[in-house]
Amino acid sequence: MESFFSFLEKRVDDCTSLLCVGLDPHLDDLPEPTAAAALTFSLNLVKQTAPYAAAFKPNAAFFEQFGAEGWDALKQVIAAIAAESARMGSMIPVILDAKRGDIASTAEAYARSAFETLGAHCVTLNPYLGKDSIDPFIVEREKGVFLLCKTSNPGAADLQDLTVDDGRLTTDHNPLSVVNGPRSLYEHVASLAQQWNTKNNIGLVVGATQPEALMRIRLAAPGLWFLAPGVGAQGGDLDAALKAGLRRDGKGILFPVSRGISRAASPAKAAAELRDEILGLQYMLRR
Amino acid sequence: MESFFSFLEKRVDDCTSLLCVGLDPHLDDLPEPTAAAALTFSLNLVKQTAPYAAAFKPNAAFFEQFGAEGWDALKQVIAAIAAESARMGSMIPVILDAKRGDIASTAEAYARSAFETLGAHCVTLNPYLGKDSIDPFIVEREKGVFLLCKTSNPGAADLQDLTVDDGRLTTDHNPLSVVNGPRSLYEHVASLAQQWNTKNNIGLVVGATQPEALMRIRLAAPGLWFLAPGVGAQGGDLDAALKAGLRRDGKGILFPVSRGISRAASPAKAAAELRDEILGLQYMLRR
Repeated sequence: MESFFSFLEKRVDDCTSLLCVGLDPHLDDLPEPTAAAALTFSLNLVKQTAPYAAAFKPNAAFFEQFGAEGWDALKQVIAAIAAESARMGSMIPVILDAKRGDIASTAEAYARSAFETLGAHCVTLNPYLGKDSIDPFIVEREKGVFLLCKTSNPGAADLQDLTVDDGRLTTDHNPLSVVNGPRSLYEHVASLAQQWNTKNNIGLVVGATQPEALMRIRLAAPGLWFLAPGVGAQGGDLDAALKAGLRRDGKGILFPVSRGISRAASPAKAAAELRDEILGLQYMLRR
Repeated sequence: MESFFSFLEKRVDDCTSLLCVGLDPHLDDLPEPTAAAALTFSLNLVKQTAPYAAAFKPNAAFFEQFGAEGWDALKQVIAAIAAESARMGSMIPVILDAKRGDIASTAEAYARSAFETLGAHCVTLNPYLGKDSIDPFIVEREKGVFLLCKTSNPGAADLQDLTVDDGRLTTDHNPLSVVNGPRSLYEHVASLAQQWNTKNNIGLVVGATQPEALMRIRLAAPGLWFLAPGVGAQGGDLDAALKAGLRRDGKGILFPVSRGISRAASPAKAAAELRDEILGLQYMLRR
């Protein structure tokens, strides 16, 4: 049975892309504030961008805001991605951006919701409640999670950037590390995630806008995949992010882009260009 | 316009109760795994326990697991609480236990989902993303939030118990404090929440099973309401929790109980007894 990240890597190879297409039906982008409009918006994006998408990332909030009908639309969007994948002969992973986080039977219910009811392959989670809040989502190795690690909003300073004393003697897993001394909470989370990743199905959410943080997290978690938002609308520098965060195998970062694609005159063209831009920069880095 | 916590306190006075009735339709407790069964289960609990409930706390996960139909059931449950409140002539606050946490327009969409689409008055949130992830939920003072602070699961040690260096000179807001020296992440969260609570609509989720942590959090956040799960099924000691966590005004803790009530032969009787037990202990503490 393959793991979530071997599944993702197969798709990355199939489409030579590190682009993750975000499906965020903002009210501002819909002709009317209805679940039906959110569905049309998302299905159009799926159809236009599937050839260039290493993954799709529907954002639960923008469906949930429409209640039961929104939930139904979300399920249809995920089914449409599976159908489009089958048509192309290459399965595209669906990362449900839900940022859930709870314990015990509640976490099990959220896992059931994401993987069984909706049919997603992966879900974003919040790490604040610790390992046992993650466990129900990683039982099966073919289902994956991305844990929030370092976000790019101002509030990241409130908790994530705090210096923590985690009783650690060595600084990280990399003997060549240049990162010494006190460690931030987000580096601690990265290190925990690396330890917990025994089934190749845990990744990290790391803002692409801060190359230094990306580099520190790569040192703390040398093997993990990152989901790195902030390229495009938020002004993240793709080249700097790739240099700081790519793994030695030239993989390891997915760049989710939503409005940078959905608001383009041609989403297909915007996605193709982003895919090619990333590919070009990867090529330059390998030289 | 009243604040969320003045609304809650009015209800606490009306029913002389610090009991919060959890609505958690676990699959194990339903005759069949359907949204209709979850709805029946929840409506029965609302009807039986409303006279003793300072608040109701439906858990989003146990509805979400049923997809669109579950979402619809959740909305009906919240509407039934409003109807029961109107019948009794005393509005019962609804705390949606959703533990959401996201930023910017996504957080706005979650707030819209909880407060507008569903009609809840309050929502549980995860603080990992910081202040700007909370803001969209506290814009209106009559809507409230409880931020996860210190949970009672083993994984709480992974992040919440870490010692942090938050550059603080004084230890907390209480000049009589006995808590000195390094501070944990959960105490830092409590202190931030106290600072952020300028509209009387921010509380904290604090496990009732650890009286020392409750005491430390009360010192860091002397004015806030706590939502303190763990009494009943998880074996929390009500007396110790009240001693450690009550505010000087004899209020300040809501005790959510789910299975301890729903699995009783008579949920009405179980809720009445719990309400009275808390009331008796409060009375003893005041003497």
